[in-house]
Amino acid sequence: MLITLLTDYGREDEFVGVCHAVIRGIHPGGEIVDLSHGIPRHSVRQGALVLRNALPYLPAGVHVGVVDPQVGTERRAVALSCADGRILVGPDNGLLSLAWQEAGGIVEAVDASHSPYRLEPVSATFHGRDVFAPVAAHLAAGKPLAAAGEPLDPGDLVVVELPTARRDGSALLAHAESLDRFGNVALNASQGDLAELGLGTTVEIESRGARFLARFGRTFADVDPGELVLYEDAYRSLAVAINRGDAAATLDIGLGDEVRLSPC
Amino acid sequence: MLITLLTDYGREDEFVGVCHAVIRGIHPGGEIVDLSHGIPRHSVRQGALVLRNALPYLPAGVHVGVVDPQVGTERRAVALSCADGRILVGPDNGLLSLAWQEAGGIVEAVDASHSPYRLEPVSATFHGRDVFAPVAAHLAAGKPLAAAGEPLDPGDLVVVELPTARRDGSALLAHAESLDRFGNVALNASQGDLAELGLGTTVEIESRGARFLARFGRTFADVDPGELVLYEDAYRSLAVAINRGDAAATLDIGLGDEVRLSPC
Amino acid sequence: MLITLLTDYGREDEFVGVCHAVIRGIHPGGEIVDLSHGIPRHSVRQGALVLRNALPYLPAGVHVGVVDPQVGTERRAVALSCADGRILVGPDNGLLSLAWQEAGGIVEAVDASHSPYRLEPVSATFHGRDVFAPVAAHLAAGKPLAAAGEPLDPGDLVVVELPTARRDGSALLAHAESLDRFGNVALNASQGDLAELGLGTTVEIESRGARFLARFGRTFADVDPGELVLYEDAYRSLAVAINRGDAAATLDIGLGDEVRLSPC
Repeated sequence: MLITLLTDYGREDEFVGVCHAVIRGIHPGGEIVDLSHGIPRHSVRQGALVLRNALPYLPAGVHVGVVDPQVGTERRAVALSCADGRILVGPDNGLLSLAWQEAGGIVEAVDASHSPYRLEPVSATFHGRDVFAPVAAHLAAGKPLAAAGEPLDPGDLVVVELPTARRDGSALLAHAESLDRFGNVALNASQGDLAELGLGTTVEIESRGARFLARFGRTFADVDPGELVLYEDAYRSLAVAINRGDAAATLDIGLGDEVRLSPC
Repeated sequence: MLITLLTDYGREDEFVGVCHAVIRGIHPGGEIVDLSHGIPRHSVRQGALVLRNALPYLPAGVHVGVVDPQVGTERRAVALSCADGRILVGPDNGLLSLAWQEAGGIVEAVDASHSPYRLEPVSATFHGRDVFAPVAAHLAAGKPLAAAGEPLDPGDLVVVELPTARRDGSALLAHAESLDRFGNVALNASQGDLAELGLGTTVEIESRGARFLARFGRTFADVDPGELVLYEDAYRSLAVAINRGDAAATLDIGLGDEVRLSPC
Repeated sequence: MLITLLTDYGREDEFVGVCHAVIRGIHPGGEIVDLSHGIPRHSVRQGALVLRNALPYLPAGVHVGVVDPQVGTERRAVALSCADGRILVGPDNGLLSLAWQEAGGIVEAVDASHSPYRLEPVSATFHGRDVFAPVAAHLAAGKPLAAAGEPLDPGDLVVVELPTARRDGSALLAHAESLDRFGNVALNASQGDLAELGLGTTVEIESRGARFLARFGRTFADVDPGELVLYEDAYRSLAVAINRGDAAATLDIGLGDEVRLSPC
């Protein structure tokens, strides 16, 4: 099985490379996809969303997530098999929770905190190398999940909580669910939510008290350079962009921030 | 066949990882080379130059380019086979044009905008995932080019336009063709162009009205730290660097900017 | 054999991608691990330390290092086989020296400066592409080391020099041996060094005249967010971090800087 990796390790240091090396040592010839190592540091929620969004595009495999501010504490390391055949590996802090929902739910779960597949001695600060990579490599090589740890009740796993968009009179209050490096902002809303409001082709977006006009479009170039476009992004979320510009910076929107969409 | 990828997606987001995953799903075991994902955003010309320069060092394969400010509009997606056996895949905006010239010209071209190999539903903003990666993967796996789209006249394809260096009296006016992260500046000129001017071992470089002295050298360490060196770079372009420094920043040179080289 | 790459090339440019392509052209199907391309520019010492620290986690292979401020000068390119079966390839500037010590010492060494495996014509500025990648690829494909260059006396190789931590009365003077992107600072000292001083659970750290209190812990979350923790890092060095913060920035510590640890 293929292994995918999602972390907040960044690429400047050797952390990702060492994880690859550990995997190749255990499972030579296996395929590895670096899904992302650019999750904002310690942003479990952002990591959970990226993993969920990307999942339908990933061949079924062992999907590793490491965004782990509690590394080395009592938080559990877990390995989970899902109804659609995928295996998820990571810390028990909610990072994997949106993915297993996307994957049809959990069929079997183990606590891998003391997995026999760990690299000994296990460090207190680099479980990507010492726990998650070796456990994933053994599972990708065909070892059974049950051998990777102790049985665990899936109902005990931590689940990430997300804010919900809501209607406020004729407006929709939504939240920035992800930002990409171009400053495009995905909201926790769909085009359908706006359609229900009966909004026209132009919408007012209020962010931190400032107001902006955006037009509906299919893609960036549907508005002039520098103008705001409201569109359905590649994961079918409602999103805000500026053609050839940076919407997050211009509207001063950070991850999780609330914006108000209303007719104008 | 091997697949190479060149984009302006950057590495912070999951865009590149998702493209890899799509390729591996269609063509398991295929080799992928990430040529560059650091092309400046929307810089079709820079992408075209990097792809052309790198091409002689790439094994013949399916070479994908995605620098695509017009994604989701009427611009075509194309797949091209070249005289030297290479296949090029990308938007029809000039990005591939220097590469196909380097590859001996086009033998066969198809419009892949509605390719049967696309992932459905096709998003309006992420054709790397939905069009270019799957088309490239099928071609790398051995599918014939003709099956990837509708026949297209190569003469209709968009070609990128480059500025040309020119002589001005005893001086040479040249342009910054690429900048690397060290601030080394490649010019659209060769050592031969300067030799024709009969320049000595020291040259005056004028950039934005300011003048600097540079010495000819083979490599950075041929001048003292902090000094300017004029040298033939690894792609045989005339280039300007500062030993252990940043020539682009010091001379305030941006992509495409003109500099004036004259005897002193 | 697997190939690992460690460079200061960064990821923005096509340098790493071109090296991958050269390797794949010579040794199709070979495994490549990008250990790190984020070594600070020209920092031979930092590169040497990262390679040494990571080595125990890398399957035996051909380990390439390119941090090479003297590229194109008379400095030698070398290929070395080690007592534990590893092969090291890189410039003769000390970059490989900590790795070969870690690998049990050198069994055979060749000067690859004029290796028959180089790509011709050899540029003066991109030996990663023209010398190190092709030499490594041929060795990984099974060619004998002796065929890669001229025999060389291992005693003639450049060795990197490191500062040494030392006792000063009741204090320990140590140096920042590496910084990661989170601002965690590894020192050239071990927990044993501090134990010898009889330090308690709280230590005063003096950096550039300013004083800070740190507590011993196993991991980041053993102290409150914003507090300093002194811990054994994943390579068993004594290290300083701030839980959810940036110790290097807060304490104003750069690579190689001295800090003073004393009881309080």
